[in-house]
Amino acid sequence: MTTQLQSAQKGIITDQMKKVASSEDIDSEKLRELIGDGKVVIPFNPKHSPSNISAIGKEMRVKINVNLGTSPEIINLQDELTKLKLACELNADAVMDLSTGGDLQEIRKIIIDKSSLPLGTVPAYEIFETSKRGGHDFSSAKASDFIKTVKRQAEEGVDFMTIHAGVNSDTVKKIRQSKRIMGIVSRGGALTVNWMTKNNKENPFFERYDEILDIAAEHDVTISLGDAFRPGATHDAGDSAQISELILLSELADRANQKGVQVIIEGPGHVPLNQIESNMVIQKTICKQRPFYVLGPLVCDIACGYDHMTSAIGGSIAAYHGADFLCYVTPAEHLRLPTIDDVRNGIIASKIAAFSADLARGKKYAVIQNMEMCKARNNLDWDKMIKHSIDPSATTLSLQKSGTNHEKPCTMCGDYCAIKINCLFHSETALLFI
Amino acid sequence: MTTQLQSAQKGIITDQMKKVASSEDIDSEKLRELIGDGKVVIPFNPKHSPSNISAIGKEMRVKINVNLGTSPEIINLQDELTKLKLACELNADAVMDLSTGGDLQEIRKIIIDKSSLPLGTVPAYEIFETSKRGGHDFSSAKASDFIKTVKRQAEEGVDFMTIHAGVNSDTVKKIRQSKRIMGIVSRGGALTVNWMTKNNKENPFFERYDEILDIAAEHDVTISLGDAFRPGATHDAGDSAQISELILLSELADRANQKGVQVIIEGPGHVPLNQIESNMVIQKTICKQRPFYVLGPLVCDIACGYDHMTSAIGGSIAAYHGADFLCYVTPAEHLRLPTIDDVRNGIIASKIAAFSADLARGKKYAVIQNMEMCKARNNLDWDKMIKHSIDPSATTLSLQKSGTNHEKPCTMCGDYCAIKINCLFHSETALLFI
Repeated sequence: MTTQLQSAQKGIITDQMKKVASSEDIDSEKLRELIGDGKVVIPFNPKHSPSNISAIGKEMRVKINVNLGTSPEIINLQDELTKLKLACELNADAVMDLSTGGDLQEIRKIIIDKSSLPLGTVPAYEIFETSKRGGHDFSSAKASDFIKTVKRQAEEGVDFMTIHAGVNSDTVKKIRQSKRIMGIVSRGGALTVNWMTKNNKENPFFERYDEILDIAAEHDVTISLGDAFRPGATHDAGDSAQISELILLSELADRANQKGVQVIIEGPGHVPLNQIESNMVIQKTICKQRPFYVLGPLVCDIACGYDHMTSAIGGSIAAYHGADFLCYVTPAEHLRLPTIDDVRNGIIASKIAAFSADLARGKKYAVIQNMEMCKARNNLDWDKMIKHSIDPSATTLSLQKSGTNHEKPCTMCGDYCAIKINCLFHSETALLFI
Repeated sequence: MTTQLQSAQKGIITDQMKKVASSEDIDSEKLRELIGDGKVVIPFNPKHSPSNISAIGKEMRVKINVNLGTSPEIINLQDELTKLKLACELNADAVMDLSTGGDLQEIRKIIIDKSSLPLGTVPAYEIFETSKRGGHDFSSAKASDFIKTVKRQAEEGVDFMTIHAGVNSDTVKKIRQSKRIMGIVSRGGALTVNWMTKNNKENPFFERYDEILDIAAEHDVTISLGDAFRPGATHDAGDSAQISELILLSELADRANQKGVQVIIEGPGHVPLNQIESNMVIQKTICKQRPFYVLGPLVCDIACGYDHMTSAIGGSIAAYHGADFLCYVTPAEHLRLPTIDDVRNGIIASKIAAFSADLARGKKYAVIQNMEMCKARNNLDWDKMIKHSIDPSATTLSLQKSGTNHEKPCTMCGDYCAIKINCLFHSETALLFI
């Protein structure tokens, strides 16, 4: 077994690299170099072999991830599969199965089987859930269970995994010393610290990291280094706890790459507008331009029911300043397990953030699609506007509701349509002022 | 009659300034100075005397405006009044009646009567609509009709008016020379250029600007200098046509202030992420820190059905970098006259943008509300989370739908709730690591 990273370092351009180079409109040799340097990853476990692969990192299009999965309270596999289908249809770039309710292994197997997108997991959930179901509590898992779970998931075909290895006794000290309002908001992070505390032991994800890397190398699982201490309140952003963990993640990323394992770094979280740019720059610098995967960032804390918007604001700015991979946030964030409608809104919001950043960075696909839309708009060509819009079905529906037909201005302006008036003055009287 | 500006320049602190100073938590003498310098305005026509006044400009909270009004296609006064009610209930800061269908004067009178918020208009619409209904086309209006309409609306109690005085033969040349995709997208701007072209005359808003200022001074109507040449496509942002008009608007603002008239400058429009900060800085510099009112900015062109989001992204960044007043954008933008639901979504999106910018700028009200929310969240106190959220009714509804009750974590995480686990480790075992 050779990972994409190892192949790249040996000068080999894999089939996956060729495919990505074509979709990203980048020279395959250049892509190989970026992968070899650890600046780009292609999450691709050959056991799964997702058909819709994508590369995440420097010079790539901004990518988005869709979380789904059961919760302890709501176990409805059919709904989760509908969400998966939606993610594929709406051209998301990756999916994470975060199930914590029901038969975790069975659910994961079905999702892996049905997902044409790279699939990620958070092994901490299965480790602690299994421990709890064994009649004990979260903290009764053995250190060896951590390794076994990672191994089993890798063998099943998981393409990327969030590993909470940035939690160790040093970084936990930093968070205990912090003056945070919200403490730890990462579920896997909180459970890991809970385990360490109850067992008075070092975190197995950290202590036995080399074993995890060996498994990852064997199956080409991309490691997504979880940010257990990401801020969960804008007040807590950029504190010593967050940045200490980031420094440790950078070291862990070096170790991963040295073993031929592809690696992504996870980031915040809740970050106010004035800190996003600096947060991205410091992350990219400390982590040597490795792919950065942000969970938001949300730019305020009060927007319950609308956090897909706070996340689109933060995500677009983050991506413009270097974030490579946006984890979508739905309107249900902080409130409940997302419904299918929530998932749809979350995906679109995240796509808007990614597209806007790509447009501002001059990515060719974005510039062209945007230009086509403007031309269609300037021609009052509703069919082409629908075609080039970010969500053609929503555009169609909105127009149908209003009764706007395809040959005239919309019901907002009617004869006051600036574009229509524009046309008049261009065609009839342009000579007067020239 | 003395305008707020004239009072401020004479050293008088008006009742309106006192009220605003209290709600903005600023010293009233300091506020008076800012108003006297033209850096802050209080739109307040004594004929209307809105009860919910607010100040717009430097050091003030970011404000939001809600557009409403009939269109030639859809004339439903009841719907528009429902939108007005919603704007008041959701604590918007101003409303503009942009009606172009039905009995314009009658509709406006009712809206003025029912609006507790400062009310704005775009006189161009009434001027051109009246001309059209007279059996002719838009361009048959006489120059004197421009003045008469402004005067009548001022007498009726309109608090602020968009005046398209930045359109003159010089700036029209710039836009004709431009390589824009979208040309003119301002309805009033397009109509004004159309009038100039058909009549081969200078724009009355520009040529007879002094008469307009005299009317504004007499009724303390705040002039909002319209940006007829704002970019309507991200491709067109920041071009010579836009900036030439801006330079002219700055000169017109000087003339307004010299006559004791309060003035706001309007701005874009569609602007990609990489240009928003520079666009705000150049505007504030050219226009000598006068209040800046942005219509968006939308950060891409393809998000039909979701332009409240592209606007929230652009608006938050713009406000963080100096924009003082955000015109809301609804999901119906570019598609149809907004429904009541669209208006609700547009208002909330705009409020999120304003709040996020205020939070990042350290505005006390935002820091406190945000902190209260985080404390409530950390205590799993759902009642307080509802109370401090940006839209309590939506938060309540979302929780009800999920069956989350008020004493446990939500259906997303259940026992995996990081906050719950946090509490465990804080209370039981905090000593272990200290």
